[in-house]
Amino acid sequence: MENSEIVAAFDKVAKLRGWEQLHTAKNLGVALSVEVAELNRHFQWREDADIHSLMQSENAKEVSAELADIQMYLCKLAEVLGVNMDLALRNKIAENERRAREVVNGGAP
Amino acid sequence: MENSEIVAAFDKVAKLRGWEQLHTAKNLGVALSVEVAELNRHFQWREDADIHSLMQSENAKEVSAELADIQMYLCKLAEVLGVNMDLALRNKIAENERRAREVVNGGAP
Amino acid sequence: MENSEIVAAFDKVAKLRGWEQLHTAKNLGVALSVEVAELNRHFQWREDADIHSLMQSENAKEVSAELADIQMYLCKLAEVLGVNMDLALRNKIAENERRAREVVNGGAP
Amino acid sequence: MENSEIVAAFDKVAKLRGWEQLHTAKNLGVALSVEVAELNRHFQWREDADIHSLMQSENAKEVSAELADIQMYLCKLAEVLGVNMDLALRNKIAENERRAREVVNGGAP
Repeated sequence: MENSEIVAAFDKVAKLRGWEQLHTAKNLGVALSVEVAELNRHFQWREDADIHSLMQSENAKEVSAELADIQMYLCKLAEVLGVNMDLALRNKIAENERRAREVVNGGAP
Repeated sequence: MENSEIVAAFDKVAKLRGWEQLHTAKNLGVALSVEVAELNRHFQWREDADIHSLMQSENAKEVSAELADIQMYLCKLAEVLGVNMDLALRNKIAENERRAREVVNGGAP
Repeated sequence: MENSEIVAAFDKVAKLRGWEQLHTAKNLGVALSVEVAELNRHFQWREDADIHSLMQSENAKEVSAELADIQMYLCKLAEVLGVNMDLALRNKIAENERRAREVVNGGAP
Repeated sequence: MENSEIVAAFDKVAKLRGWEQLHTAKNLGVALSVEVAELNRHFQWREDADIHSLMQSENAKEVSAELADIQMYLCKLAEVLGVNMDLALRNKIAENERRAREVVNGGAP
């Protein structure tokens, strides 16, 4: 899904519920931290091997739903902040690659 | 950017750095929580009006970079877990709409 | 309660449940982040005035329980890491006071 | 240190800095989540064995300082919310013990 579609779907539900005025940058930032923690509750006391079996179980649905919640709040927050996610990603990826090459090339000329 | 492009760019840097084996579901979940907190550090002591001016300032770049980091870890985590984000989003959006309509329609027939 | 009493009570329950080996530093750090998010769920969409009324309601009990959970995980984590909390607090308070005085005194001699 | 001493030290610095009005329940909750993430940054890509060596290194000081920050925000938040931490702890410990015994005793008469 395109980010604009995700935001449109998010806003549609917010409007039905009368929640629009709650979706400020500050509240959305807290919501993101809460959703990430809800995701981490599934992983919290497990080894990585157990997380693999978790994803073969009935609970995989809940994990997927948490990932979707995080994606929705992230897209909405970017919109509220006026951030173009595509541009933000391209800049960050370019910076990460530049840094990785610096490290790999060490002090070489 | 497509999620697959984001993951490819993420993996490229991880390979250059030798970080691939660190990117387990559990570690990526913690990384997500850390990146969300780094985002929230910008909002932490501000009112929403001040967040608007933050986004007109030099610091807007850092905020955009944090959003990009969250997006990258989220895409990578979905890949590690074998979650199709498009499907996860469509299911969650459908559920949110259904719930919103139930609330709006109350006990009506 | 003293930190040592809190850790003893925590360990007693862990032993009854057979959870001792789960209480590694890394897992306890994730548990802390999850408990803090469970606390923040109560505040997430509220104004500070509404948080005051929350604390007059039935839900105050749940908020208190989340604070207690955070305190228990924090004491246990300090123990696992071998950190003397009293010393850590005295050092941090001294540093915070020193920094505050520097700011207040500005560049004055 | 007693919680009241911790809060007094916290308030002294806040007064010197003119930060008192920032310390609302909502902001303190976000501050807690940010400090916990700063702690988790130290553990994020490490195995538990590496965390042990971390605590033998120079960085142990920073970890201790993060624990102290979490403790200070927690005490201040409890005060702002009007929660008696000792009582909250005793209630939560009693509940945890009760639940552990139920599980241990299973369905036995």
